Amino acid sequence: MRFSQLLIPTLKEDPAEAEVISHKLLLRAGFIRKLTSGTYTYLPLGLATIRKVENIVREEMNRAGAQEILMPMVQPASLWEESGRWQEYGKELLRFKDRNQRDSCLGPTHEEVITDVVRTNVHSYKQLPLNLYQIQTKYRDEARPRFGLMRGREFIMKDAYSFDATDKGAEESYHRMDLAYHRIFERCGLRFRAVEADSGAIGGSFSHEFMVLADTGEDTIAICNNCQYAANMEKASCVVASSSDAAPLELERIETPGKRKVNAVCEFLDITPAQLVKTLIYMVKDEPVAVLLRGDHEVEEVKLANVLGVSDEDIRMADDKEVFDATGTPSGYLGPIGLAIKTIADLEVEAMVNFAVGANEKNFHVLNCNMGRDFSPSQTGDVRKVTAGDKCKLCGGTLELTKGIEVGHIFKLGTKYSTALQATFPDDHSHETPFVMGCYGIGVSRVVAAAIEQNHDKDGIIFPAPIAPVQVLILNLDLKDEGITSAAQTIYKKLQEKGIEVILDDRDERPGVKFKDADLIGIPFRVTVGKSFSKDGIIEIRSRADGNVSTITFDDCVEEIIKNVQNSMNL
Amino acid sequence: MRFSQLLIPTLKEDPAEAEVISHKLLLRAGFIRKLTSGTYTYLPLGLATIRKVENIVREEMNRAGAQEILMPMVQPASLWEESGRWQEYGKELLRFKDRNQRDSCLGPTHEEVITDVVRTNVHSYKQLPLNLYQIQTKYRDEARPRFGLMRGREFIMKDAYSFDATDKGAEESYHRMDLAYHRIFERCGLRFRAVEADSGAIGGSFSHEFMVLADTGEDTIAICNNCQYAANMEKASCVVASSSDAAPLELERIETPGKRKVNAVCEFLDITPAQLVKTLIYMVKDEPVAVLLRGDHEVEEVKLANVLGVSDEDIRMADDKEVFDATGTPSGYLGPIGLAIKTIADLEVEAMVNFAVGANEKNFHVLNCNMGRDFSPSQTGDVRKVTAGDKCKLCGGTLELTKGIEVGHIFKLGTKYSTALQATFPDDHSHETPFVMGCYGIGVSRVVAAAIEQNHDKDGIIFPAPIAPVQVLILNLDLKDEGITSAAQTIYKKLQEKGIEVILDDRDERPGVKFKDADLIGIPFRVTVGKSFSKDGIIEIRSRADGNVSTITFDDCVEEIIKNVQNSMNL
Repeated sequence: MRFSQLLIPTLKEDPAEAEVISHKLLLRAGFIRKLTSGTYTYLPLGLATIRKVENIVREEMNRAGAQEILMPMVQPASLWEESGRWQEYGKELLRFKDRNQRDSCLGPTHEEVITDVVRTNVHSYKQLPLNLYQIQTKYRDEARPRFGLMRGREFIMKDAYSFDATDKGAEESYHRMDLAYHRIFERCGLRFRAVEADSGAIGGSFSHEFMVLADTGEDTIAICNNCQYAANMEKASCVVASSSDAAPLELERIETPGKRKVNAVCEFLDITPAQLVKTLIYMVKDEPVAVLLRGDHEVEEVKLANVLGVSDEDIRMADDKEVFDATGTPSGYLGPIGLAIKTIADLEVEAMVNFAVGANEKNFHVLNCNMGRDFSPSQTGDVRKVTAGDKCKLCGGTLELTKGIEVGHIFKLGTKYSTALQATFPDDHSHETPFVMGCYGIGVSRVVAAAIEQNHDKDGIIFPAPIAPVQVLILNLDLKDEGITSAAQTIYKKLQEKGIEVILDDRDERPGVKFKDADLIGIPFRVTVGKSFSKDGIIEIRSRADGNVSTITFDDCVEEIIKNVQNSMNL
Repeated sequence: MRFSQLLIPTLKEDPAEAEVISHKLLLRAGFIRKLTSGTYTYLPLGLATIRKVENIVREEMNRAGAQEILMPMVQPASLWEESGRWQEYGKELLRFKDRNQRDSCLGPTHEEVITDVVRTNVHSYKQLPLNLYQIQTKYRDEARPRFGLMRGREFIMKDAYSFDATDKGAEESYHRMDLAYHRIFERCGLRFRAVEADSGAIGGSFSHEFMVLADTGEDTIAICNNCQYAANMEKASCVVASSSDAAPLELERIETPGKRKVNAVCEFLDITPAQLVKTLIYMVKDEPVAVLLRGDHEVEEVKLANVLGVSDEDIRMADDKEVFDATGTPSGYLGPIGLAIKTIADLEVEAMVNFAVGANEKNFHVLNCNMGRDFSPSQTGDVRKVTAGDKCKLCGGTLELTKGIEVGHIFKLGTKYSTALQATFPDDHSHETPFVMGCYGIGVSRVVAAAIEQNHDKDGIIFPAPIAPVQVLILNLDLKDEGITSAAQTIYKKLQEKGIEVILDDRDERPGVKFKDADLIGIPFRVTVGKSFSKDGIIEIRSRADGNVSTITFDDCVEEIIKNVQNSMNL
C-alpha cells in the first residue's frame, strides 16, 4: 500500500474532543473519526488493527472448539421479556418500535437470542458441550460515551456462550475459555493479568476479568509480586495481618473532646490507626448495620454486600441522622460495646488485641477493647479493601495495587437464562434439564485502545507487532532522487513478495513530516531510504518499540527486515 | 471439524415458513434460523459460506485499489436532513430517538456518512481518486420481508463509494469496479450477467446490475444470444424491427362495432397486431399524454419516463374517465389522427407503413394510417419493452429473455450527494469543486441465496466450490468398525494437514441419514469410508456437482481428493 493513496488523515495537534491518550492518538494517527458522540468510523489503518485482533480471537476460539455464528443485531422485545431484562435493563438498552409497531432493541449482548437458538435446535445431551461465538458490532446507549474506543456506544465485541449438561461440564468449558483468553492476549503482545472478579449473587470463583495493565486504567487491581494471584478490588482478599500474643488489658474510658476522625483520635491517644477499630453504619435495605474495621482500612462495599448476602445496590453509608437514630450517638464516637444493632466485624478485627473504639457517648472513647470479651458481632467476614503491602493469601507474597483496563470477562452463568427461557434438554433419564451456561466477552475495539494506553510515548503509538496495522513502513525521503525512489520501491516490492505487510511513504512531503507521522502511527519497523543510501548505499532500520537503529547495505536489508519482523511476531 | 460437534440442525421436511428454494434449503441444511420476520441467525455452516463470499469480495476490492473501512450502523438524522433523504426515504429507513432524544436511524446505506467522512478528511485533489468500502450488516425495515436471505430486514452488504476530481476520473473508477465485480462473481463460481440498468434522472449508461441467472429470479433480463449485450427490462432496447418498402395507401374508415381490444380488432380486420398501432393515454404529472405503440408491444414505463424527462413515479396509465376527458373518445377507439394532446410515438411506429389505428370515434377504426402523412407526434422515442426474438442493437443477434437475481449494482452518482452535503475540494485553480461520486453494492448474504437458487437439485444444495462452507465431507459409515473409523480419521487428518477444509461425519447415525445430509448441505466432495473399504480397501469420492463417483485405494485417495478440490477451485 502506498501512503499517498491511503486515507490516513494524521493531525498535528491533539483534538479538543479527546481526553485520554488512546483517544487522542487514534484521532491524531488517522485511525478513527467521530460520527456522533460514542460512534466512530474506523479508517483503513484503524480497521486493519481491529482485524488483527479479530483474527487472533477467531483462531483461538476455533482452536478451543468454539463455533462462529452471527446473530441479528436487532432483537425482539419478547425474548427480553422472557428473561425479565426488558424491564430490568437500564437505558443502555436502546428500545424502539419497527414499522409494524413491534417492540425491538439493538443488541448490547445476546444471552437471550443464543438461548433461543439453542433451545430450538439442541435436543440431546449428545450435542453438548457447545460453545457458540460471534464477532459483531454491539450497541449500548451510554449516558456519557467517552474516551474514544474505550467506552463508545457502538463497539466491536466477541461474545461467546457455552452450553453444558452439567455443572462440572460448565466448569470445564469455563477453563477452556480461560486458557484461550490467556493465549489471545499473549498473542496480542499485551501485558495483562486475569483477575478474580466478583460474580455477585451466583457466587463461586467463576468469574475472571482480563485486564491490560496500564497506568491510565480506570480499574484498580491487586496483584501478588510473587505468584499469579490477581483480583479486582471487589474480589481481592489477603492474609489477616494483625496478630499479637499480648494479654488483654482492662477497658479504660477516656475523654476525647471533639475528636471524631480516626487520625485526630489516634493522635490524641498517641496510638496508630492500626490500634483502633472504627464503627461505620450502613443502611442495608433500610436496616442499619454496624461495620467494624481497623482504623486504617476501608470498606469494600461489594465484599460487604456478599457477606450480607445482598446486592451491592442494596447497601449505602448511613447519613448522620440515620446514624443517630440507629445508635443514639453522634457519628465519630460509635463503638461496638453495648451496640444494639446488627454488627459485622471484619476478619482483621477478630485478630486485634487491646484496640481503641468509640464509647457510644459524645466526646468519649474506650481503650483496650477486645472482641469476644467486650462484644460479640452478629457476623464476621472479609469486608475490607486490600491495600498495597498486604500479604497474598496464596503464597504469602506482597500484594501490589496497579491499574488495568478490562478487555475481557469470562463468567459462569449457571442456569439463569436457560431456566428463564425454558431452554432444556432431556438428560440420560429423560428428565428435562436446563442447560448450564457460561458467557465470555472480549471488547475487540477496546483491546486496540488498551494496547495504545499501554504502549505509547510522547511521539505516538508503539504497536505490539501482532496487532499493528502493518509491520513495516518504508520512507522514501526524496521522491526526486531516482536512486532513492527506485531503491525504496524495490524494497517495497520484495517485502510484499515475501508476504510482509508494508506501507511505502511515497508522499511528496518533507522528511520531517514523514518521520513524525511514522512515529505517530506506530508501525513496528521504519525503513529509511535517504541521503545515506545515495552516499553510501546504506538503509536504516529503526524499531519503534525500543528505538534501536541498525544500518545495513541495500543488498542485505530485505533479509534483515524480515528477520526483525519475524522476531517481533514470536513474542 | 467433526459433524458430531458442529451445530448443523438439518431438517427432514420443508419448513412451512419458506416459499423459495434457497430459503427452504438454507433452513433444511441448518445454515440459518429465523429470529424474527426478515432476521436470521447464521449458524456455523451458513456463516462459513458467507465468509467465503466476503473474502473473495475483499480480495478483489483491495486488488482494485479500494480501501476497507467500517462506518457506524446508527446514523444521525442531521446528515440525512442535509441530503434531503430524512424526508424522502420511505419506511424502510428505521428511525428512532436515542436516550438523549436525538433523531437517529439504522443505516440501510451510507452515502451520507461516507460523504461526511470525505468532506472532513480530504482536502486536495492529490488525495484522489479514493474508493472506500465496508462489509457490514445493513438494516431495511421491509414491509414484507420474505424469501429468507433474498429479501431480509438485516442483510450483509459490501458497499463502496468512489470519489474523483473529474467526471472522466469517475468513469475510470466505475470501470475499475465493473472489472472487479466481474472477477468477484466469476471467482464465486456463478453464472451471471452484468446488465445495463436504468440510471434514472442522472442519465448515461453508468449503471449496471449484476444478475445471477436462475429460473427462480424475480427480475427479467434481456440477453443477446450472440454477444455480451444484456440489460434489464427498464433499460433494454433493440433494433427497430418494422420496415417495409410498401407504398402508402389511402386512409380507409371502417366500422368495428364493439371491438376495443387489440386482438378483437385485428381478428375483425384480419390483420396481425404488428399491423396495428394502439394509442394509450398516460397521466404525466396530471397532464394527459398519448403513447403510440405497435399492437403487439408493451410500454416500458421507466423508458417512457426517461423519454419524457420525468421520474417513473410521475407517470401512470389514465383511467377510463381521464381518457374520455382528454380525448372525447371512449378508450378502445383512440388513434393519433387529429388527436389534440401531446403524443409520443415509439420508434417502431415510425418505421411502420399502412397500419390500423382507432378513428377517435366509438365503433370505428382507420386502415392505412402512416406517420408523417396522417399525423405528427410531439416526440418519438424508444418506450417499449423488448421481447424475446428482438434483434440485438449491438450485433444483430437475437435477444432472449431470462430470469435473474440482482446481487450487485454499480452506479455513477455524480455530484448528487457531494453537492447536497457541500463536500468539495479546491481544484488546481483553487475553486471549491464537488467530488464526483460513484457507489457500488454487493448483497453478500444475497449472493449465497442466489447461488443456491442457481445451484441445487431435489436433494439439496450444490455449492460452487469457492463458496462452499468446506470442500470435503468424509462419511464414516460404521463407527463400530475400527478399520473404517481409523481410515476415516486418517484421511481427515491428512487433508487438514494439507490445508483442505474438511468435515468428518462421525455421528452415530445410519448411513442413509449421512448420505441424505451430505446431499442436503451440498459440500462439493463426499468421501465415503464404508463396506468397500473393509472388503477391498476402496474409498469412494463423489462430486456433488455432477454426481460422478470415483473409487480409489486408501493409499491414493488423499492425493486424488486434493486434485479434485484444486480443479474445482480453479473454475
